[in-house]
Parts: sequence; structure tokens; C-alpha cells
Amino acid sequence: MVTKAMLPEFWTEILVPVCAVIGIVFSLFQWYIVSCVKLTADRDVSSSLDDGKNGHGDYLIEEEEGVNDQSVVAKCAEIQTAISEGATSFLFTEYKYVGFFMVFFAVIIFLFLGSVEGFSTKSQPCTYDKSRTCKPALATAVFSTISFVLGAVTSVLSGFLGMKIATYANARTTLEARRGVGKAFIVAFRSGVVMGFLLAANGLLVLYITINLFKIYYGDDWEGLFESITGYGLGGSSMALFGRVGGGIYTKAADVGADLVGKVERNIPEDDPRNPAVIADNVGDNVGDIAGMGSDLFGSYAESSCAALVVASISSFGINHDFTAMLFPLLISSMGILVCLITTLFATDISEIKAVKEIEPALKNQLIISTVIMTVGIALVSWTGLPSSFTIYNFGTQKVVKNWELFLCVAVGLWAGLIIGFVTEYYTSNAYSPVQDVADSCRTGAATNVIFGLALGYKSVIIPIFAIAVSIFVSFSFAAMYGVAVAALGMLSTIATGLAIDAYGPISDNAGGIAEMARMSHRIRERTDALDAAGNTTAAIGKGFAIGSAALVSLALFGAFVSRAGVQTVDVLTPKVVIGLLVGAMLPYWFSAMTMKSVGSAALKMVEEVRRQFNTIPGLMEGTAKPDYATCVKISTDASIKEMIPPGCLVMLTPLIVGFFFGVETLSGVLAGSLISGVQIAISASNTGGAWDNAKKYIEAGASEHARSLGPKGSEPHKAAVIGDTIGDPLKDTSGPSLNILIKLMAVESLVFAPFFATHGGFLFKIFS
Amino acid sequence: MVTKAMLPEFWTEILVPVCAVIGIVFSLFQWYIVSCVKLTADRDVSSSLDDGKNGHGDYLIEEEEGVNDQSVVAKCAEIQTAISEGATSFLFTEYKYVGFFMVFFAVIIFLFLGSVEGFSTKSQPCTYDKSRTCKPALATAVFSTISFVLGAVTSVLSGFLGMKIATYANARTTLEARRGVGKAFIVAFRSGVVMGFLLAANGLLVLYITINLFKIYYGDDWEGLFESITGYGLGGSSMALFGRVGGGIYTKAADVGADLVGKVERNIPEDDPRNPAVIADNVGDNVGDIAGMGSDLFGSYAESSCAALVVASISSFGINHDFTAMLFPLLISSMGILVCLITTLFATDISEIKAVKEIEPALKNQLIISTVIMTVGIALVSWTGLPSSFTIYNFGTQKVVKNWELFLCVAVGLWAGLIIGFVTEYYTSNAYSPVQDVADSCRTGAATNVIFGLALGYKSVIIPIFAIAVSIFVSFSFAAMYGVAVAALGMLSTIATGLAIDAYGPISDNAGGIAEMARMSHRIRERTDALDAAGNTTAAIGKGFAIGSAALVSLALFGAFVSRAGVQTVDVLTPKVVIGLLVGAMLPYWFSAMTMKSVGSAALKMVEEVRRQFNTIPGLMEGTAKPDYATCVKISTDASIKEMIPPGCLVMLTPLIVGFFFGVETLSGVLAGSLISGVQIAISASNTGGAWDNAKKYIEAGASEHARSLGPKGSEPHKAAVIGDTIGDPLKDTSGPSLNILIKLMAVESLVFAPFFATHGGFLFKIFS
Repeated sequence: MVTKAMLPEFWTEILVPVCAVIGIVFSLFQWYIVSCVKLTADRDVSSSLDDGKNGHGDYLIEEEEGVNDQSVVAKCAEIQTAISEGATSFLFTEYKYVGFFMVFFAVIIFLFLGSVEGFSTKSQPCTYDKSRTCKPALATAVFSTISFVLGAVTSVLSGFLGMKIATYANARTTLEARRGVGKAFIVAFRSGVVMGFLLAANGLLVLYITINLFKIYYGDDWEGLFESITGYGLGGSSMALFGRVGGGIYTKAADVGADLVGKVERNIPEDDPRNPAVIADNVGDNVGDIAGMGSDLFGSYAESSCAALVVASISSFGINHDFTAMLFPLLISSMGILVCLITTLFATDISEIKAVKEIEPALKNQLIISTVIMTVGIALVSWTGLPSSFTIYNFGTQKVVKNWELFLCVAVGLWAGLIIGFVTEYYTSNAYSPVQDVADSCRTGAATNVIFGLALGYKSVIIPIFAIAVSIFVSFSFAAMYGVAVAALGMLSTIATGLAIDAYGPISDNAGGIAEMARMSHRIRERTDALDAAGNTTAAIGKGFAIGSAALVSLALFGAFVSRAGVQTVDVLTPKVVIGLLVGAMLPYWFSAMTMKSVGSAALKMVEEVRRQFNTIPGLMEGTAKPDYATCVKISTDASIKEMIPPGCLVMLTPLIVGFFFGVETLSGVLAGSLISGVQIAISASNTGGAWDNAKKYIEAGASEHARSLGPKGSEPHKAAVIGDTIGDPLKDTSGPSLNILIKLMAVESLVFAPFFATHGGFLFKIFS
Repeated sequence: MVTKAMLPEFWTEILVPVCAVIGIVFSLFQWYIVSCVKLTADRDVSSSLDDGKNGHGDYLIEEEEGVNDQSVVAKCAEIQTAISEGATSFLFTEYKYVGFFMVFFAVIIFLFLGSVEGFSTKSQPCTYDKSRTCKPALATAVFSTISFVLGAVTSVLSGFLGMKIATYANARTTLEARRGVGKAFIVAFRSGVVMGFLLAANGLLVLYITINLFKIYYGDDWEGLFESITGYGLGGSSMALFGRVGGGIYTKAADVGADLVGKVERNIPEDDPRNPAVIADNVGDNVGDIAGMGSDLFGSYAESSCAALVVASISSFGINHDFTAMLFPLLISSMGILVCLITTLFATDISEIKAVKEIEPALKNQLIISTVIMTVGIALVSWTGLPSSFTIYNFGTQKVVKNWELFLCVAVGLWAGLIIGFVTEYYTSNAYSPVQDVADSCRTGAATNVIFGLALGYKSVIIPIFAIAVSIFVSFSFAAMYGVAVAALGMLSTIATGLAIDAYGPISDNAGGIAEMARMSHRIRERTDALDAAGNTTAAIGKGFAIGSAALVSLALFGAFVSRAGVQTVDVLTPKVVIGLLVGAMLPYWFSAMTMKSVGSAALKMVEEVRRQFNTIPGLMEGTAKPDYATCVKISTDASIKEMIPPGCLVMLTPLIVGFFFGVETLSGVLAGSLISGVQIAISASNTGGAWDNAKKYIEAGASEHARSLGPKGSEPHKAAVIGDTIGDPLKDTSGPSLNILIKLMAVESLVFAPFFATHGGFLFKIFS
């Protein structure tokens, strides 16, 4: 007897889009609140906020200091416009180039998948249930191509909207900083919320609509339906790759270039308006850390949903056509939006930030609260959205799973994410000893700083890897690859909150930059710096989530790939697999070499240009002449567009080349190898970079006796810390986070092309044997 | 019909020890030649060399410059004694501590292996051929323990003798440098030859004698015999671990500490006698780079022989009792000694070094000549020492192999070694663009130098990994794990030459140090610096060989382990294996974090002590007072002894813990994971470090227009280069090379304990299921 999920299909069809719409409405409401901070020079600077709990009773610092308010606000607005225009123009350039690539790749998808059955339009017996008839491979080719394009467009939209929100919020955060650190925090955080909810809800809604539209054609052929849907993940992830790499090179070329000449050689503060690279630097935060990260996490979300769906379609959910259970991944995400909505209220309306030291705990509480509530939410969804017992496809056999076991799979992923987040915080926040030790090592110079920082990064890998290993073991043991996929979804279920606290960082960073450039009071800058220091840690936490979920997602995609390619075992004791593992484990190094070298070369060009301007523009150092910001923006843009192509090709072509020439066994090895090696490098790179950044901030802030003994700015230990920070930039913002995408993208690409490889793959071995 | 090898067993029994003895005699002869350079202040400083081709017609630089020769020679002798005593005393301390550990571990081996059949003394049916009777598990326990101790003692001996030779040769190289760069080269190189041949021949001889002695007890039970022999590899490798880690921490703590205060803060030259850490630094070269590396490569050699032997014993060689074919691995090594002997003559007697620029080509030619001749040698051994067709055990089945196929397996390993060597040279020698680019990036400071250096290291991984992958694919496809083991042996067959050119580096480094400390002419220092720069490259090449062979050896040991543990497949698509892979890939990071942090902390202590001495000893900077060398030596000694224990335990205990609690599948995953991840880090770490070192030397030497534009010493780019060099020290000399041992040691340990894990392993899963 077939038991179905308790929740009727009708309600599922309603609940998922309703939750998505709630998320979008909530996001727009937050945007409305942020927009109440006016960027015009009225005295009544944010009247509409004054009735809120986080709103009134503060004085503007300018009033205390007697500074002319009008000109400062106008200046902020002007800078904001410059940043926003720079970011928009870069993204359009990037999208133009990537657009060509996407069209090209869409054609490849269509041709390769269409060729599996020689472009035949006849229906074929299904792969897993030969008694039934499924749609032809040509349909898979067409619909995979469509979903690929949809995924790519959604990803572009996610990144672009995120950037727009961030560049809208940065100057508003600066202005609110005049009214107090709590005010500034809440504007930056609300803007992060806008981005988080918009992305999460948007991704869910597009996926939901796509599934329902495809279903009109596919009807009962769910196997074909959800195979085609995998294109959505591929589209999302391949856009994310270019976003992360291009944006990462852009932001770090500008950042490194600006720091090396401005801070090190000319001894002027960060974000000083005299520095020609300063606008490029602030644009970079928005295109790299915001747009790139938005695309990245959207990609993870899309891929884990796709991996779960494709495995479910050949499990009892798909075979029995239980639509509610089939959409379990989407139900989890829907619940996640509601949970994150409640969680957000804790930060925006229930509690209030009054002092700098409350910021980090408030952000941490967001993580804890969302995780705790989500655990209940998962239990609810598992109870109503799943049959009490069902079977899951497990590499050739079907495995019986209970609904509480699947609950555990999702929950273990969710909590593993929290653990990874906390470990990341421990290793990258300057409130704890690891970063303080790194700062201390600056006493003996940059060399020991780098040695200690690298060692810290390596060490920070240990617990996250155990957390990931435990989640994999539990979820894999209970529910095979479906379990791993839903564990990834569990980790990503609170993505709205995760993105909110993650986006908050670059917004604060920009706010500080604007304060400096608008020559606002030093006290404003101190406030934004405090926001930014917390933002560095949350950015590292966000990267921890991104890499943790990427590991689970890749494994799930890998499992889906081998299932779809008809591989029964991936045995390390065969030469094809072992060389795949070895070469796969090498790919993250190759990729990192490319991206780091790109940042280095682009930074060198930037340094030369900045030096040139300082040397040739009279009055620049004195502040009487304006630097040529546009040339620096152009250098970053050109370098990132040019340099993102080789690493992009490496990632996109490797699965095609290996699959076609060496076949699915070697490709399986490559995927597994790049997964297990890439995770480690990504975690260590992003934590090392985060630690160096905060070690520098620790010395600059001088909040403790120990910190003051290392400072102040300009002291020898501080100079050593700046060197570490500069080295960490490409590690933590370019090569490290791009590796998430490398491992996910190669896996999802293999999954999409699996039928092609299964038919035409292993060309080299075929001609030799 | 059983075909046997062409070479009769009688001749095999004679040829192997004869070749070993030839190696030893040749080594002693070279020692005699080196000893002819007298360390007494006679005018007739090296009369006995003057009749040799590389001997006469030069003037002493002192004569030209009119410096008093007598006092310089006496000074050199005094410094040499100090270095030699420091090294000896450290090694004795190290061996004392490690000795306790060895006894403890020997007991564990006996107890664990004995417990497999409950310490029964009754013979049992053989594992692979149930119709025959084999010796009891207790015998395996006893003989494994004995061979473990023998391996450990041989390893200690190898390291100790190497150190003795190097500390004997260093001052002699300095003195010969007065007579010309060719003279100095030949002394340093001959000393390296002494070490190379002594180690290769000694390792072979002890292994040969052990096999023959054990055979007296085991008789026809070759399975048991060669299982026990694996203890030899474990003993060699575990000593090597402590040697590498302890020596690595010692040398780099002293080096980093000396550089940070001396070169960076006090602006005095490297190896200046006023620097209190200078003796410790020079002692470090001998205990780390010489003794550690000697033990390491001896371990690789012992392990690859053991891996090949244990697989052969359950293949047709063992089943048919074909002793010649069985000893094929030893025949390869014997041939290697003869080939290396001929190769050496090319450097010492056939050609002659007259100019600095001839040094690197001469060393490279050694590699090429030995590889070419050895290819013929392998063909000869494969033709005479193997049946034309035989079967090899392949995870449950027997695979038919032809003798020419096995020839290809050995040859592919040999040539892959050469390719790895050349790629390493390309990325670490300052004659090529990669290092020059790194040097160029110093223009913009230490940060870009580090970014470019890291990127270079990552990039340098690509070709070696492909070379290793191809060797694995070829050898694995032809002859399963036996093929991989003999490929490793192929790579190590020219170990005598490899060690010679490798040991040459630290000897030259020391020679330069002695010249500086003895306040000899600047021109002498220039000559030794030139030797040293070539030595840096050859050291990197040596590390390339070490890691390449370690990868092959580990895989072969891994294969032998799964065979012995009765595992048929190691399927990535099972949770136990996949978590093993993930955690295994993390171990090299954990290990590196420990060792790098150790170097950092020990260096900090050293810095404080050196600063203290400069600040408190009056007249030290002026050269009127002597520094307290002994305290610095003590700091290095204490730190390295204390700090080598945690990483040592990590490596030694992991296989035991994983095997016992999680079972052989997870352990297989851990071994494979650490192998594929460790190889990459080890290659990138050692090449990054080598490149930084030579980028600095490139600027210092100022041999080209480009180099001069970056220099001279003390310029900003040079300072940036010094920072890179210091960061690279622990990467290239501590954590990087120790990783070879990590991956080999965990594999050989698992192999030795395989019967125990197969019987008692997987405790955790047993109690939960």
C-alpha cells in the first residue's frame, strides 16, 4: 500500500508560492523603511523612522560639532551615485560578455543532450522503469536549455538586485551613523534583509513556476521533468562563477592597489578621497562581495533543490507521483522564508542595538534564533509533507526511509551550518585568541604574521570538516544521496537570514568609505568601522556557510550524476578513478593559481596608475586637485573581464573534456577529488584572510591593553598587519569563495551532461581498447 | 607450466649483496678523497688532490689578497667543530626521546598483531591459499616488531651518518672555495655522493640480510615472511617523521629567528658571527635538511620495496617460489647503485666545473644521465630477473602480466621522476621567468611577493600531478598495485644520485656560513653563494622526487593494505569511505597548522633571545664580545623536541584510531584522502618556498639588468623578498616535506596493522549495529 504525504497536493501548490510572495512583500517593506532615510539635505533627515523603536532621541553629530549638514549630505549622495553607476556599468559589461558565453553554452547543452538519441522525437522507454514511456532525449535537451537560461537569468537578477540594494543603502547607513551606531546598524541590516529575502523568495518562485510549466508538457514523466530542471542549477551556478571570479578580481585589484600606494606608500587613510582607486575599491565591494555572493548562494540553493528533486524523481515520491513529497525541498525553503521573517523581527523590532559591543552578539543571535525555530519548522514540514515511510533510490537499489529519519538529515545539515558559522567566527573575530595571536605575531614583522595566519587558516579547517563529515555520514546513512541533498537544503534553509547578515558587511564597509570620502567627522568613521569589523566576521561566517553547503550540495549532485550516468560503484581501487581523484584534487590549486595571479597582476597595474596620478597630478596630495577615478575603474573592469575567462573555461570545460575523453568513472574521480580538496582550501583561504583583516582592525581599534601595545596606526606591527591583510584579500574574496562554485559547478554540469557522457563518453579508452 | 626468471636464484643471492658492498666501498672511497682536504693550517692544504683532474693549478685567494692563511683555517676548523657538536648533541637528544616512543610502539605492534589470533602459537591455514599451512599470527607479531626496530635503527643510522658526513664536509668546502668554485663544488658534491651511496647501499643490504634471516624461520611461508618485512618500512618511516619534523622545526626556528633580528632589524649579513643564532642556524641545516631528508628518502625506499614484496608474495612469484622474481625490487635497487656509480664519474672525473654557470647544468646532467642509463638497466633486470609472463594479485583476482609490461611500469616511474625534477627546477630556479616574476613583484612590496609566490606554488602542482597520474595509470593498468610499487621503485632507483645532489645544497649553505663566520674574503662568500643558489634548486628537485615517490609509494602501500585487510572495493559512494576521504584530506592541513605554528612560536622565542643578547651584551654589535651561541642552540633543541610530539602523534595515532573505531573502509578513505590532498600541498609548499628563496638570491646576486633594478641588498624590493624567503622557510623545510612522510607513514602503518583491523576494527559501528 502506498502512503502519501499528509498535506494534500492542492495545499502544496498554494503554500509554496504564497510563502515566496510573503518573502518578496516583506523584502519590499524593508526597502521602503530604508528608503525613508532621505538622501536630500533636509534637516528632517529621517522623520518617518522616528516613530519606530529604533528611531528617535538622538542628536546628529554634526549638530554637536557644528558642521554644515547640507553639504555633507549632498556629498554623500554624489559619492553614492558614483559608486552605483560604476557598479552598474561594470555589471552590464560583465553580463554582456557572459551573455555570449551563456548563449554558446546553451547551444552546447542542446546539441550534446540532443545527440544522445540522435535528435529523435520519438518517446523512449524510461531509464528506471522500462515498462513506461518517457519523453525523448530531445525534450530533455530543449527543456534543460530553457531551464539553464532561466537559472542564469535568475542568478543575474539576484546579483544585480543585491548590488542595487547595497548601493542604495550605503550612503543611507553613513547618514544614519550620525544619529548613532544602533541607527546605522539597523539601516545596514535592513538592507541586507531586503537582499536576503528577495533572493530566497525569487529563487523559490522561479523554480516553482518552472516546474509547473514544464509539468504541462511532461505530464507523468517526472523523471524527464526533473532531469530537465537540473539545467536551472547549472545556469545559476555558471553565472555565479563568473560573478564571483570577475567581481572578486575587480574588488581585490582595486583594494590591493589602493592600499599598497595609499596606505603603505603615501600614508593616507583607507578610503581617502585623494586616492584615485578609492571609487573602484568601493564599487568592488558591491560587485564582488554583494553581487558575487548573491549569485553564489542562489546557485547553491538552486543546485541543492535540483539534486534533491532529481534523486526524488527516481525514488518512491516520483514513482508514486506524490507531488507534496516530491516538492519537499521547496516546502523546506518555503518554511525557511517564514522562519527567517520571524528571526528578522528579533533584530529589527524586538531588541535594540545601543552600543558597538552589542552588534556582533545581535548578528550571532540571528543565526541561533533562526536555527532553533527552523528545527521546529523542519519537523513540521517533515511530518506533514512526507509519507511516514518511503523509499529512496540508492545506486541501483531502493532504500526504505522513515520521515523522522529524513527530518534528522535536514536538521543535521542545519545545525552543522551553525557549528561551521561559530567556528568561523572563533577563528576570524578579534574577540578571541586566534586572531589576537596573529596580531601579536606582527611584533616580529610581516613574515611571522603570514606564518601564523596561514597556520590559523589550516587549523580552522578541522572542526568544519568534522561537522560536514558527520552531516554526510548521518544523512547518507539514513537516506543515501537524497539525505545529503536535503542536508544541504537544511543548511541553506535559513539563507535569507544568512544573506542578510552577510550583505550587511560590505554595506557597512561602503558606508565607512563614504564617510571618509565625504570628509565627515572622525567619530562617524569610528562608528562605521565598528560596524565593518563585525561585518568582516559575518562575511567570514557567510563564507563558511557557503562552503559547507557547497560541500554537501556537490556530494549530492555527484550522487545524482552517478545515478543518472548509471555508475554503480566509484572504486578507488581502479586506475581510472584514482587518477581522476588525483587530478581533481589538483584543480582547485590550478584555479587558485589563476585567480590569485590575476589579482596580483591587476593590482600591479592599479598600483602603477595610482602612483602615476600621485606623481603627475599637481595638488592631488594636498587635496586641491581631484584624482581621475574613472581610469582606475576602467583598469579594474578590463582586468576582471579579461582575467575571469581562463579560470571560467577551466571549470566549465574540465567536466566536458574528462567526461568525453575519459568517461564517467574518471569524471566521478575528478568530481570527488575536487570536492574533498577544494573544501579544505576554500575554508582555510577565507579564514586566513578574515583573520588577517581583523588582526589589522584589532591593532587599529586599540580596544585593549594588548592591542594598544601593538599600535597605533603606522607602527611597525601595524605595517606588518597591513601586509597580511593585503595578502588575505585575494585569498578570502577571490580564490577562496570561487572554489565553492568550482566544486558545485563541475558536479552540476556533469549531472546535466550525464546522459551524453553515458552514451558518448570515454572516447580515448574506446579507441585504445 | 610455470616459467621462472632467467637469472638463477644463486646469482640473485650473490648479486644483490655484492652491489650493496660496491656502493659502500665507493662511498668510502669518496670519503677518503674528501678527507684529503686537510683542516689543519699547513700550507700544503690539499696536496693529495693535486694529482686529480679537478685538482691543480689554482692559487689560493688568500695568497692574492695577502691574508694570513693559518688563522683562517684554524677558525674554520673551530666553527666546524661547534656545528658538528651541536648537531650531534641535538640528534642524540632527539633519538633519546624518539627511542622511548619506538619501544612503546614496538610493544603496541607486538600486542596488536599478536592479539589477532589470541597469541596462539599454532600454525594456521594461509590467507590466500587455504590448502597450505602458514606461520601463526604471533610469529608475524614477533618478526614485524623485529623488522620495525631494524628499520628504525637503519633510518637513524642513515640520518646520523649523513649529518656526520655533511658536518665533515662543510668547512672543507669552504677551504676549497679559496682554490676556485670548481674545487669547492667537487668537494661538496663528493660529500653528497658519500651520503647518497651509503644510504642506498645500507638500506639495500639491511633489507636483504633481514629477508634472508627471516627466511630461515619462515621457510616456504613467503606470505608471512614478507608481511613481517613490512615492519621494516614502518620503522624507517616513523623515524623519518620525527627526523623531518624535529629537524625541520629546529632548522627553521633558528633560521627565521636569526634572519628576523639579524638581517631585518640589525642589518647585518646572513651568517654573521655576531648573530647569536648563527651556530644554531648552521646546525639546523645539518639536522633538518641532511639527517631529516636522508631518513625520509630511506623511508620511501624501504616502503616501496616492502609494498612491492608484500604484493609479490601473494602473486605468482610468491606462489611459485621464484626467488629471483620475488627479489625483483632489490635487483632494481642493486642496478640503481651501479648506474649511479657510473653517473657520478661524469661529474667527478669526466667533466670539470670551471665557472659558476656550469654548476646547475652539471647537476641537471646527473639526473638526465642516471635516468637514461637506468632505463637500460631496468630493461636488463626486467629481462633477466622476471619470467616472460606471470600473474599479479589484483584485489581478489590474479592478473596476467608480461615482463615488458613491468619494464614499462618501472620506466614510467623513473621518467616521471625526471619530469617532476625538471618542472620543479623550472619553478624554483631563478634562471626562468616564474621566479623572476616573483622577484619583480617585490617592487610593490611584500604583499604582492607573497601573492605571486603562493600562486606560483599552486601552479607548479599541475604538471607533476599529471606526471604522477600518468605513471599511476600506466603502472596500475599493467600490473595493479605491484605496478605502482615498482613505479615508485623506478623513481627511487637513482636515489644515490638524487641524494648526492640534494645533500650538496645544505653542505654549500654551511660552507657559506663558515666563510662568513670565519670572516673570510668576500670573494669566497660569493663563490659559496653561487654553489648555494644551485643547491636551493637541487634541494627543491630533491623534494619533488621525495613527494612524487611518496605519492606512488603511498598508493602502493594503500593497495597492499586493502589486499591484506581483505577489502575488495573502496567505493566512494558509501558513507564510510566518503567521510574518510574528507577527513583524510583535512589531515595534511591539521598537520601543517601544527608544524607551522611550531616554527612560528619557536622563532618568536629565538627572536626574543637574539634581541636580548644584542641589547644586553656590550660590544656584541661591534664584534668585540662573543654572543652566547649555546642558549640559542638550546632554544632550538627544546622547541623542536617539544613541538615534534603533537604532529608525530597525529600521524601515528590516526590510523590506529580510525582503523580500530571506524574500520578498514573508513581507514581506506582516510588514506586515499590524505594521499590526494597531501601531495598537492607538499608540492606547492616546497616550490613556493624554493621560489621565494631564489627570488631573494636573484635580487642579491644582481646578475642581470632586471635583477640589478630590484637590488641591491637592503633596497625596498630586497626587503620584501627577505620577508617572502622567511615565510617560505617553514613551508619548504618543515611542513611541506613532512607531508610526504605523513601520507607514506599512515599507509605503511595501516598495512602493518591490517590483520588487527580486519579482526578487531570498526568497533564503533559494531556496537551501534
